[in-house]
Amino acid sequence: MERLNRTPRLDNPDSDALRREILDYFHTTFDRYEQLFEVLTCDEAFTVKPIALRHPLIFYYGHTATFFINKLLLSGLVEQRINPRFESIFAIGVDEMSWDDLNDDHYNWPSVAEVKAYRDQVRQTLDRIIREAPLSSPINWEHPWWTIVMGIEHERIHLETSSVLIRQHELRYVQPHPAWPVCRDSGPAPANQLIEVPAGKTVLGKSRENSRYGWDNEYGHREIMLDSFKAAQMLTSNQEFLAFVEAGGYIERRWWSEEGWNWRDFTGAVHPTFWVESEDGWQLRLMCEQVYMPWDWPVEVNCHEAEAFCRWKAEQTGELIRLPSEDEWYRLFDLARVVEPDNTGPVNANLHLDHFASSCSVYRFAQGDFYDVSGNVWQWTQTPIYPFEGFEVHPYYDDFTTPTFDDRHNLIKGGSWISCGNESLRSARYAFRRHFFQHAGFRYIAADAPKDTPSSRYESDALASQYAEFHYGDEHFGVANFPRALACLAIELTGEGRRGKALDLGCATGRASLELARHFDQVDGVDFSARLINLGVQLQQQGRLRYTLPDEGELVSYHERDLASLGLADTADRVSFMQGDACNLKPILSGYDLILAANLIDRLYSPRQFLSQVHTRLNPGGLLLIASPYTWLEEHTPKEEWLGGFKRDGENVTTLDGLHEVLDEHFELIRGPKAVPFVIRETRRKFQHTLSEVTCWRLRG
Amino acid sequence: MERLNRTPRLDNPDSDALRREILDYFHTTFDRYEQLFEVLTCDEAFTVKPIALRHPLIFYYGHTATFFINKLLLSGLVEQRINPRFESIFAIGVDEMSWDDLNDDHYNWPSVAEVKAYRDQVRQTLDRIIREAPLSSPINWEHPWWTIVMGIEHERIHLETSSVLIRQHELRYVQPHPAWPVCRDSGPAPANQLIEVPAGKTVLGKSRENSRYGWDNEYGHREIMLDSFKAAQMLTSNQEFLAFVEAGGYIERRWWSEEGWNWRDFTGAVHPTFWVESEDGWQLRLMCEQVYMPWDWPVEVNCHEAEAFCRWKAEQTGELIRLPSEDEWYRLFDLARVVEPDNTGPVNANLHLDHFASSCSVYRFAQGDFYDVSGNVWQWTQTPIYPFEGFEVHPYYDDFTTPTFDDRHNLIKGGSWISCGNESLRSARYAFRRHFFQHAGFRYIAADAPKDTPSSRYESDALASQYAEFHYGDEHFGVANFPRALACLAIELTGEGRRGKALDLGCATGRASLELARHFDQVDGVDFSARLINLGVQLQQQGRLRYTLPDEGELVSYHERDLASLGLADTADRVSFMQGDACNLKPILSGYDLILAANLIDRLYSPRQFLSQVHTRLNPGGLLLIASPYTWLEEHTPKEEWLGGFKRDGENVTTLDGLHEVLDEHFELIRGPKAVPFVIRETRRKFQHTLSEVTCWRLRG
Repeated sequence: MERLNRTPRLDNPDSDALRREILDYFHTTFDRYEQLFEVLTCDEAFTVKPIALRHPLIFYYGHTATFFINKLLLSGLVEQRINPRFESIFAIGVDEMSWDDLNDDHYNWPSVAEVKAYRDQVRQTLDRIIREAPLSSPINWEHPWWTIVMGIEHERIHLETSSVLIRQHELRYVQPHPAWPVCRDSGPAPANQLIEVPAGKTVLGKSRENSRYGWDNEYGHREIMLDSFKAAQMLTSNQEFLAFVEAGGYIERRWWSEEGWNWRDFTGAVHPTFWVESEDGWQLRLMCEQVYMPWDWPVEVNCHEAEAFCRWKAEQTGELIRLPSEDEWYRLFDLARVVEPDNTGPVNANLHLDHFASSCSVYRFAQGDFYDVSGNVWQWTQTPIYPFEGFEVHPYYDDFTTPTFDDRHNLIKGGSWISCGNESLRSARYAFRRHFFQHAGFRYIAADAPKDTPSSRYESDALASQYAEFHYGDEHFGVANFPRALACLAIELTGEGRRGKALDLGCATGRASLELARHFDQVDGVDFSARLINLGVQLQQQGRLRYTLPDEGELVSYHERDLASLGLADTADRVSFMQGDACNLKPILSGYDLILAANLIDRLYSPRQFLSQVHTRLNPGGLLLIASPYTWLEEHTPKEEWLGGFKRDGENVTTLDGLHEVLDEHFELIRGPKAVPFVIRETRRKFQHTLSEVTCWRLRG
Repeated sequence: MERLNRTPRLDNPDSDALRREILDYFHTTFDRYEQLFEVLTCDEAFTVKPIALRHPLIFYYGHTATFFINKLLLSGLVEQRINPRFESIFAIGVDEMSWDDLNDDHYNWPSVAEVKAYRDQVRQTLDRIIREAPLSSPINWEHPWWTIVMGIEHERIHLETSSVLIRQHELRYVQPHPAWPVCRDSGPAPANQLIEVPAGKTVLGKSRENSRYGWDNEYGHREIMLDSFKAAQMLTSNQEFLAFVEAGGYIERRWWSEEGWNWRDFTGAVHPTFWVESEDGWQLRLMCEQVYMPWDWPVEVNCHEAEAFCRWKAEQTGELIRLPSEDEWYRLFDLARVVEPDNTGPVNANLHLDHFASSCSVYRFAQGDFYDVSGNVWQWTQTPIYPFEGFEVHPYYDDFTTPTFDDRHNLIKGGSWISCGNESLRSARYAFRRHFFQHAGFRYIAADAPKDTPSSRYESDALASQYAEFHYGDEHFGVANFPRALACLAIELTGEGRRGKALDLGCATGRASLELARHFDQVDGVDFSARLINLGVQLQQQGRLRYTLPDEGELVSYHERDLASLGLADTADRVSFMQGDACNLKPILSGYDLILAANLIDRLYSPRQFLSQVHTRLNPGGLLLIASPYTWLEEHTPKEEWLGGFKRDGENVTTLDGLHEVLDEHFELIRGPKAVPFVIRETRRKFQHTLSEVTCWRLRG
């Protein structure tokens, strides 16, 4: 096959050369994508759905063209739509959807000819823009032309995913095509073996300075020391997998995760999806034809099947067989000194359409001590996709990755025979639902469970996110961070000499606890709400916190905060977070030099119960710092438990009066009342702006 | 009787003399009050309730003493309670209460001796304070000693109200007493007659510089021109009222207001409450005895009975007989040149206990052309008590008057034989529920309905008050008044030359409408909510607005705003407020040069419906100014009607995008988007702080 051009270096200082390269990259990609659809035998092949939960191929035919227009509208390179109707129907629906959304009745697909005519219009438009629009090198993330490369790389992704859909189509709808030549070599597979991988460091994440296009999830940084482990030399072949099938692997519940078994149960699968049992024995469905089973080619399965195989294999071998983590795959990649596709010649991997339009033998492409660390088929990892430290969404494509940060989309690595452009790079990070099929198989490893599994989650619980932003987020209206301000006041009042123990009652997401730990030797952060504490614990343990915030209507923005930039990394381990009830504190919570009760008392069911006992928790001379806007609400505190904010015997009783009534027996007021403001963000434009009254009380004696 | 000393002038520059006068005023009042209870025959008379809905007399015996302690605690003159239990049980319950609150089971009254001992303690405390506490003259509203005079005047009020309760007690509980001598003169009443009162101005309200103590409701200012009217020369006598009774006045529904008839129906009254039908004919209950009916004494009735009499009398005479307004009573007072009690001798009125411990003949005390403009019995007016312009509550007694601003408490004027101190002054303003009995009767007048009836209401609807404060109240966090800022922007954009018509859609309480009227010849303020518009109308028509705001818990503060100090008095009449639906505007609302839609679009059920039609309401070149925080909520706007804040075809659609989609056909964006902040006060310490995005659109053509 003619070698498909590589994803360009976008920092070429020669703008004219860069423009020419992008123009060529665009047309080649657009051509190759259209050529894929030439394997379809008739127009009906475009409109009959290959699998129930995905759109028919006509959608994907139009979709990559529409994507260009939509993204270039955002960047301003395109000023108006070409075909508003097409650009609506071809805009979304790539992901698996519920039955309703894909009900055929809701779609009246245009004809193939109409879509081809539309594609031609888009091609002309892009051609003109790439030839004529002003271009200053380098093209980076903020550059308007980023959206042009985004569109091309997007089409290259769909080149692969559409090839999978075509492979899932009925045979009568497809035909072999000279532009898509399959590998004709196959035979029995050699025995696989585990090879020792020494301990070592691996570094993940793409720098913003990298000259080649990347998706949002690739950027950021991660370094990790890995213990030694053993990895299979080759990908698992059809032959190696057959043993599992013949051992009844698909009907034995215990090899499967719960989620995997649900999938197996639902589908009734008893062998890999592209395997076909025929009178002549096992055959394999390729993209456009069916062939006798090439036993030495990699088996193609989803993540559940791969994991079930590993559990079975572990019992067979007595080894800790499992899928590698993403980190472990990178360790293999680096050790094997895999070379990415470049312009010097065909790549040493079944990758980028340099060799075949199909898989090939698992021992054809050696890379170091291994085969197929990159190329042939994608390799499932056990790692759900997660954002690296420093992750940001791209403003023009903010839902490329974020919807997959849900612990349900696992990373696949290494690329397949049809992975081109960005997909073929070491830095590529794609993830799919674990039951999905791609041109994907797996390599197993033998190792203990990995020690460090990063969290994939953006906190989206509205209250928890609001508190996270309140504690760790941006300042608004010039109001200083509230928990930090209180912690500073507490430290000032405690005095330099004294360190000792502090209790942050009602710590919520924990900012004041972490701030107090700059000074105190030990800080206990206690809150009634586990879901709030969890964010503090996450920040403390993982060093960072991610959450979404409502911006406008249903639109959200993505936020990341980390301990280091807050200056809290060195002292965070002095904090213990725990769940507790301020009105009924565990006996162990005592002996404090400071108790901070910030925005707590007007949320307790019995503030008097708390305040009348709090002196027993303090060391002599210890401080009680209370901050509250005194927003008494019956939903939190029955009226008879309010400390103030009512009339008694005809006279106003303020909460400050009530505090004196309860506290004067054991405490003296040494500071305040003083108003300290705080701001809580509800949306991009709506905030709560409140004054908390701060009083500081010293325990007598 | 010995003349009771008068309420002192508190600006006596001789502090020692002032101190002596107050000491004397205190002891005299405390003595006279205790002397009142000497008419009771036994301890049981203290604890049996004279009327069902009031506490027994033992409460009132203790209450006036407790009041001193409570108020002096607030001003700091007393540092600690004398008897916390007594000071709780004697603190509240003066007003009529529901049955539950006065259930005897809930009260365990102390003995009379215990209360007397407590009173002695309070007397000693007060004596010491008045002798020893630092005193700088003058004593004004802010002065700590104001609470001492407050306590004394408070006791003088209860001297009168307790005398009414004693009068309602069973005869066996009371006995005549030499300190309380009744008038023994009586006879047939002369015919009453209507006397012409010329038109003229009357001025109400006490100045802050006035040297004598006043309650909060007396301060402020009101001037009014009254048309001429006719007023009865004398109070209505028992004899004059008898005709109404004998005419079946109490059983004929048509003479009574609905509220009055409900009272009559509930009580079954067929004659005045102090009248007693005996075998010897009509008798009259006095405070401590029952006497043959003194026909020439004033009848004592409640407001409902007085009004029923007037309606009956009107039919009898063909004149427009009714109760006077408070204003009209002041006109009589000034014309009759009534002299207030002073230290030159007994006052020329049956007032201040200078003459009798009972009423006397309605033609005994002539004042100008009339009798008893002041004194004998209080006179009901048709005016529910309301605050004068400039009203403020006293911080140490914030519920003296405010609970009566409810249109259910009518003013009584002129004082009775037992009205002493502040009660005896022209400036006194007391009000009771219309069905209550005091030593009160009435003088009727003949006149058209008064033209100007001030509103007694403090708006306490939470949302309406919040908007009133948002539009007319204080600035917080340095954020400029929002509706004013928008109106200024609108005027700036309209340009100096153009005046014309403006529409303020979603005007709420109307500030922007009133601000726009500084510039535009005509402004229409339209809102969906009548309860919000009403406040704008009230401000426009009455020149002021009053509302309460939540401060802390159930505690509220009282606020008054007026057109003049907002600089809006001269142009307010250019505004027409009306109710309307922005999505379905009346055809007449068109031909505008400016339409302001402030914080409106995200509260409409169909903003698109409004925006797609709004161009038909504007003159060519007219401006549409939109301000909104784009806080889309399904409770206001179904999601399919949102203008933005969602994804469409995979891309973010902001509200600004949505505005362009709807408006670009007819408008061009000439200013913005620009964030303009606003602050809404929820409590004393809690605020909404929001950024509204402002865009200005000009109609093409």
